[in-house]
Amino acid sequence: MTATISACSNKNSRLKQQIKFIIEIDKLKNVLRRTYHINDNAHENSAEHSWHIALAAMLLAEYADENIEVLRIIKMLLIHDIVEIETGDVFLYDEAKRLAHTEKEKAAANKIFGLLPDDQKHEYLALWQEFEAKKTPEAKFAKSIDRLLPILHNCFNNKKSWKENHITTEQVLATNKDIEVGSKSLWQYVNSLLTTNP
Amino acid sequence: MTATISACSNKNSRLKQQIKFIIEIDKLKNVLRRTYHINDNAHENSAEHSWHIALAAMLLAEYADENIEVLRIIKMLLIHDIVEIETGDVFLYDEAKRLAHTEKEKAAANKIFGLLPDDQKHEYLALWQEFEAKKTPEAKFAKSIDRLLPILHNCFNNKKSWKENHITTEQVLATNKDIEVGSKSLWQYVNSLLTTNP
Repeated sequence: MTATISACSNKNSRLKQQIKFIIEIDKLKNVLRRTYHINDNAHENSAEHSWHIALAAMLLAEYADENIEVLRIIKMLLIHDIVEIETGDVFLYDEAKRLAHTEKEKAAANKIFGLLPDDQKHEYLALWQEFEAKKTPEAKFAKSIDRLLPILHNCFNNKKSWKENHITTEQVLATNKDIEVGSKSLWQYVNSLLTTNP
Repeated sequence: MTATISACSNKNSRLKQQIKFIIEIDKLKNVLRRTYHINDNAHENSAEHSWHIALAAMLLAEYADENIEVLRIIKMLLIHDIVEIETGDVFLYDEAKRLAHTEKEKAAANKIFGLLPDDQKHEYLALWQEFEAKKTPEAKFAKSIDRLLPILHNCFNNKKSWKENHITTEQVLATNKDIEVGSKSLWQYVNSLLTTNP
């Protein structure tokens, strides 16, 4: 028999809400991205991607151009794609679709984070909005890492996704300038990577 | 053309090592666990699992019985399964195989974290060992969350993995006592969940 959330004691209504959220976000494992894994030819999903960038952020924190609080960055990156459970992933290079999705993503954030107790709903909604706004040192560096990883995926796996979607090196450089805003040295690395392997 | 790591400037040998590690751990997305997703019938992989538990740990930190540093727990959980790239995942209920794997996992940790610059190699090896030893407040709570999630996966998806592997409720309770060591309230919740849905 599959359990129902109510199996947990009524006294624990706070925990019940948190568990409901944890169960709901399992669906992120089914949201496929255009990017392929680096080491095989399967499409990456957004849960795998979120793990990979959270880990990359903690490893590369020393390259942030401003003082950053690593915990806030990791929290942002762990939750940044959760709205995709409702909206699906939008390809970075599809600018028109990205803009059209903004309102849908806000509604999705309210719906999904709305499963949490009020204090956590507000905390995580604010973190998600901060990431999207790209203004604070933490949001800028989080965005740098979110942009860096798909470039690595392509450069170290035959540019599979870029080729398939006819993305040029010029488009990659123009669309990923957010990396420079958070980290000049990571942007320099990306430039050297793309110049050596155009 | 697929880039080689050397595409990055020679001055950046530290960054080269970090990028090499980030590329290597992409393989964790191919390590399948016995557990199924909650919301469909696909096997979960260890990268997805690591994302899910890191996020659950930050959401449920208030239930830790000791004072904990959340950043250290999340770091532990993001890296805790990386050795499985070399060894594969071992089913929690296969005690004999788990013990036999201990030495292989130590060798794997040295090999994979050995890709990093020395300071980070030592930091992450120490974190991994701390998690495995289950002695510090952070390791105890990290283990509670690592054990809690597969129980949720089973209880909220028809006990698919437990049924397939003939795991009884008694075995679940006996094997997952680590949850109680880090959080009495989460253990109480697990007990109520299993008692209501034996």
